[in-house]
Amino acid sequence: MKSHTAYLTFNTKSRREYINITLEVESELKKSGIKEGLCLVNAMHITASVYINDNESGLIQDFDDFLEGLAPHEPLSRYRHNRTGEDNGDAHIKRSVMGREVVVAVTDGRLDFGPWEQIFYAEFDGRRPKRALIKIIGE
Amino acid sequence: MKSHTAYLTFNTKSRREYINITLEVESELKKSGIKEGLCLVNAMHITASVYINDNESGLIQDFDDFLEGLAPHEPLSRYRHNRTGEDNGDAHIKRSVMGREVVVAVTDGRLDFGPWEQIFYAEFDGRRPKRALIKIIGE
Amino acid sequence: MKSHTAYLTFNTKSRREYINITLEVESELKKSGIKEGLCLVNAMHITASVYINDNESGLIQDFDDFLEGLAPHEPLSRYRHNRTGEDNGDAHIKRSVMGREVVVAVTDGRLDFGPWEQIFYAEFDGRRPKRALIKIIGE
Repeated sequence: MKSHTAYLTFNTKSRREYINITLEVESELKKSGIKEGLCLVNAMHITASVYINDNESGLIQDFDDFLEGLAPHEPLSRYRHNRTGEDNGDAHIKRSVMGREVVVAVTDGRLDFGPWEQIFYAEFDGRRPKRALIKIIGE
Repeated sequence: MKSHTAYLTFNTKSRREYINITLEVESELKKSGIKEGLCLVNAMHITASVYINDNESGLIQDFDDFLEGLAPHEPLSRYRHNRTGEDNGDAHIKRSVMGREVVVAVTDGRLDFGPWEQIFYAEFDGRRPKRALIKIIGE
Repeated sequence: MKSHTAYLTFNTKSRREYINITLEVESELKKSGIKEGLCLVNAMHITASVYINDNESGLIQDFDDFLEGLAPHEPLSRYRHNRTGEDNGDAHIKRSVMGREVVVAVTDGRLDFGPWEQIFYAEFDGRRPKRALIKIIGE
């Protein structure tokens, strides 16, 4: 069994951002030399998500509206977590709804994707360096 | 390390449907000959989910009501995504809430399940051919 | 390829509880002897979750408030599932929002975690014995 590990770092300009990282994951898969296996991609921080969906700007705004509707950033007093001095109570909940990680099949040396699947890193509390992890195992 | 890959195709009669695929996954596991490992099952389209829950018709309707309450199909104008000519903005969001994939332990040649775990394919934008993927790795 | 399987049993005193199981997972990883691979942790019951987030009591209460707001336990008649004689319709939905499982990278013999990642078992229908599964594969 082979394994390959890589880390991506993000430092977004705005609090919330949705970044397509499919090419970065494909590049690490190529480096790994793995032909058959599983590829895990996860946020390493608890106020960010990795998810798979469509690379369409209207949809990304729809996701943002949906998440802000479910767990609005303000008022900060809405979240007990913010009593610790944080202002990211909403971000922890948004991340839980969108998910921490994806696991993708590797078949014949490629991410075994349907026609529109793209991997996104979703930042809900940005403007500082944060990481995602790529771990590929197989043969 | 062994690996096994299979694809299931669905073409539902209605827009939304919840299909128990546990037997199909078990059948592929048997074919794989794998005794210890991990089994990934994921939707290959971004308007469908694979999830694990109970095979009880009332509950399935509860899920559908819950998802339709969170992200109603209509009015179509609710979703920016639908400005592209699509009518499935809601389906992208429903799928995100229910999840893209499950990863199941394989122990002693079987899906290592608790008493009520069943694998479902949830279609949120059906009436056309769509696929799910099964990838099993192990030994 | 090596594999290691373990089961944790919980019997919570209250209906809903959030239990940090990071040390238990680390202990099983050590027993496995696996240095590079993947670690799956999942609830084996369909009214409980395994998720990764912060070990902060205010945040845990925020999660509970959020989930109870989305899918309140009462009135029981809100859920068709409860017509079967159950009273846990809400718990099935809460678990779906929080997720069934996490997959964690194993790197150099350790859970490859960011600074605040902790693994939680979330019980939504407790007061009876329920299990979670740990499956680690790798080398």
